[in-house]
Amino acid sequence: MNADAPKTEVDPLVLQRRSGSIAYLTLNRPAQFNALSEAMMAALQDALATVAADPSLRVVVLGGAGKAFCAGHDLKQMKANPRLEYYQGLFDDCSRLMMRIQSLPQPVIARVHGMATAAGCQLVGMCDIAIAADTARFAVSGINVGLFCATPSVALTRNVGRKAAFEMLVTGEFIDAAAAAQRGLINRCVPAERLDAEIDAVAAAIAAKPGAAIAAGKSLFYRQIELGIEPAYQLAGNAMACNMIDASAQEGVAAFIEKRPPNWSGGPSG
Amino acid sequence: MNADAPKTEVDPLVLQRRSGSIAYLTLNRPAQFNALSEAMMAALQDALATVAADPSLRVVVLGGAGKAFCAGHDLKQMKANPRLEYYQGLFDDCSRLMMRIQSLPQPVIARVHGMATAAGCQLVGMCDIAIAADTARFAVSGINVGLFCATPSVALTRNVGRKAAFEMLVTGEFIDAAAAAQRGLINRCVPAERLDAEIDAVAAAIAAKPGAAIAAGKSLFYRQIELGIEPAYQLAGNAMACNMIDASAQEGVAAFIEKRPPNWSGGPSG
Amino acid sequence: MNADAPKTEVDPLVLQRRSGSIAYLTLNRPAQFNALSEAMMAALQDALATVAADPSLRVVVLGGAGKAFCAGHDLKQMKANPRLEYYQGLFDDCSRLMMRIQSLPQPVIARVHGMATAAGCQLVGMCDIAIAADTARFAVSGINVGLFCATPSVALTRNVGRKAAFEMLVTGEFIDAAAAAQRGLINRCVPAERLDAEIDAVAAAIAAKPGAAIAAGKSLFYRQIELGIEPAYQLAGNAMACNMIDASAQEGVAAFIEKRPPNWSGGPSG
Repeated sequence: MNADAPKTEVDPLVLQRRSGSIAYLTLNRPAQFNALSEAMMAALQDALATVAADPSLRVVVLGGAGKAFCAGHDLKQMKANPRLEYYQGLFDDCSRLMMRIQSLPQPVIARVHGMATAAGCQLVGMCDIAIAADTARFAVSGINVGLFCATPSVALTRNVGRKAAFEMLVTGEFIDAAAAAQRGLINRCVPAERLDAEIDAVAAAIAAKPGAAIAAGKSLFYRQIELGIEPAYQLAGNAMACNMIDASAQEGVAAFIEKRPPNWSGGPSG
Repeated sequence: MNADAPKTEVDPLVLQRRSGSIAYLTLNRPAQFNALSEAMMAALQDALATVAADPSLRVVVLGGAGKAFCAGHDLKQMKANPRLEYYQGLFDDCSRLMMRIQSLPQPVIARVHGMATAAGCQLVGMCDIAIAADTARFAVSGINVGLFCATPSVALTRNVGRKAAFEMLVTGEFIDAAAAAQRGLINRCVPAERLDAEIDAVAAAIAAKPGAAIAAGKSLFYRQIELGIEPAYQLAGNAMACNMIDASAQEGVAAFIEKRPPNWSGGPSG
Repeated sequence: MNADAPKTEVDPLVLQRRSGSIAYLTLNRPAQFNALSEAMMAALQDALATVAADPSLRVVVLGGAGKAFCAGHDLKQMKANPRLEYYQGLFDDCSRLMMRIQSLPQPVIARVHGMATAAGCQLVGMCDIAIAADTARFAVSGINVGLFCATPSVALTRNVGRKAAFEMLVTGEFIDAAAAAQRGLINRCVPAERLDAEIDAVAAAIAAKPGAAIAAGKSLFYRQIELGIEPAYQLAGNAMACNMIDASAQEGVAAFIEKRPPNWSGGPSG
């Protein structure tokens, strides 16, 4: 970010760009390390709603402008509203935003180029896929100001083993990108100069699949993961049978048997 | 496999062999990469029923003939029956087969020497232990034909963290055996020439324990894993108390105190 | 341990020491590898009750005297009481002890310098954090005497993936400290001569945070981990809002904004 560049009031909190069927959303409060103020959360919800409504978009890449990915909640805003009801509303809004990433029809890839702390680390945990520069760092550091990262712990413990998660939560200390990959918080890390190429390759691979199968599959993925294994299999078996009678799967299986590429040009829902 | 060898109609779909108390089951449709046709699934269910009924068998090693471990469902058969009811029945049968591995009294070790894809990768996930040649490869690749691997995702997410599992499911890409081991899909990989020796050593270690304790322990293992920690402890405490009054445990503990090997020759249930 | 040293009957089963706000509890039956006899379990429960009642204590370090960390149940005592009711009571007592570690307001760090087997390995699994000497070894080895480690499996499977956990349970074999760290049973291992320094650094980091936020956070951590993600977020959002209106968090956030260290000298509850 160039600090000398003139700023206008209409600078959007979330930058939106598309390239083919890939949507790029960028948190854009660089001077505040992209802190999740109320306005930022609302802007990201709006951007996700726009993506959800557009079936020609197949993948979302979520990144941050400036030096950090996201530093979590806006502490100044929180300090200015010292009321239980305010905090309850704020964390409810935040949890709704986090769950919206999971309920979005399109896969969301976190592009983590810098620091991801507290609710910023939670955001990484809630994305379907996360790829980081090897210089990125991760912490659930609320405890350093006396605020245990309770809502981030929900996302963290669904990605990372409990021993490692607990230590991060009670010490507030950073882990580097290699440790985050080893523990399952992110898929992998790459040198910073290769981050965009790596993410674009994954996004392109996803965008090449039928969108309806991806959307139904993503929904099934998160529903079955919370069930016992027998009801999970029942749900998954039904989902897969429904998927199989779709035109895209029928064409895909026919193409496989006939040793030719599938012809999925039939429309935006793939 | 020698393609010139004469084939007879009685060639079994699942080869069965025993060595001492170890049962070796081998998927035997090498030309179809051991695809799980209806007949193959029925043959494997039958073979598992035979094993379950024989308490002198203590461990199962499940492998595949030819180049692949298992390539998943039989796509030609699926394509030939384009009806929702057919697919529902097929996936139900497959899920029943997968759950039978868990409900079998004996531990099942997957011997993965080559490709394991889609329901073949699911099979690896459902085995109690999996050991692979370092040349083996794993994918949940249904999405490449437009069919999200919903039922395989149930097994995959119960072994592998959600970030890695999600990426495999939406990209369809292969991971190698080292990555599969690092992520928990398999226990470990070894050079191909050492695969059988490694598996036989693990099988022999299991076969040397009392079979009743192993069977009750396996059952408890999968029941407790789905419970909250308090009910899990209640169930496990009862299971362990029942185990402890068994003759085998009483003899084992006595032998330990007396610094001698246990005498477990009292019968096939150990 | 010096075998020539005179022993008195009043040698406590659990040594208790404090240094600042850190409590050090040491299992003290070195000649029996700190086996969890009935008396040892009662002594550890008593020690934990003392810690729980003292809000000036912020962290617990749990270790073992002599060569081993803990070798599990006392097999001689178990052999002497061959009755189902006795075993049920014994495992109930043990499970209550294990759950007490989770319900303790203070984080508990396992200091594993040697062998941790069966219920000793379970103890490691139930501590919030575990740091080991690289010479430590871990096994759930009950199956070697015919007794499947059912209750230890509850703790093990909540830290370690199911493939690795199952193999340990049915083979009874040891894993070393590096493998335990890689699989998530412990946070990490360090050279034995650095074990105390490493643990003291983690303990000091925790002790520097407000105790009330740590206690509420620990409680929330284990409750939310067993819930579906939506109820987990509801619980966590409420917990975090309540935490945020505490004086400690208000002061911590104010200090952060004002770029000064927080002043948390207001009392033992932090």
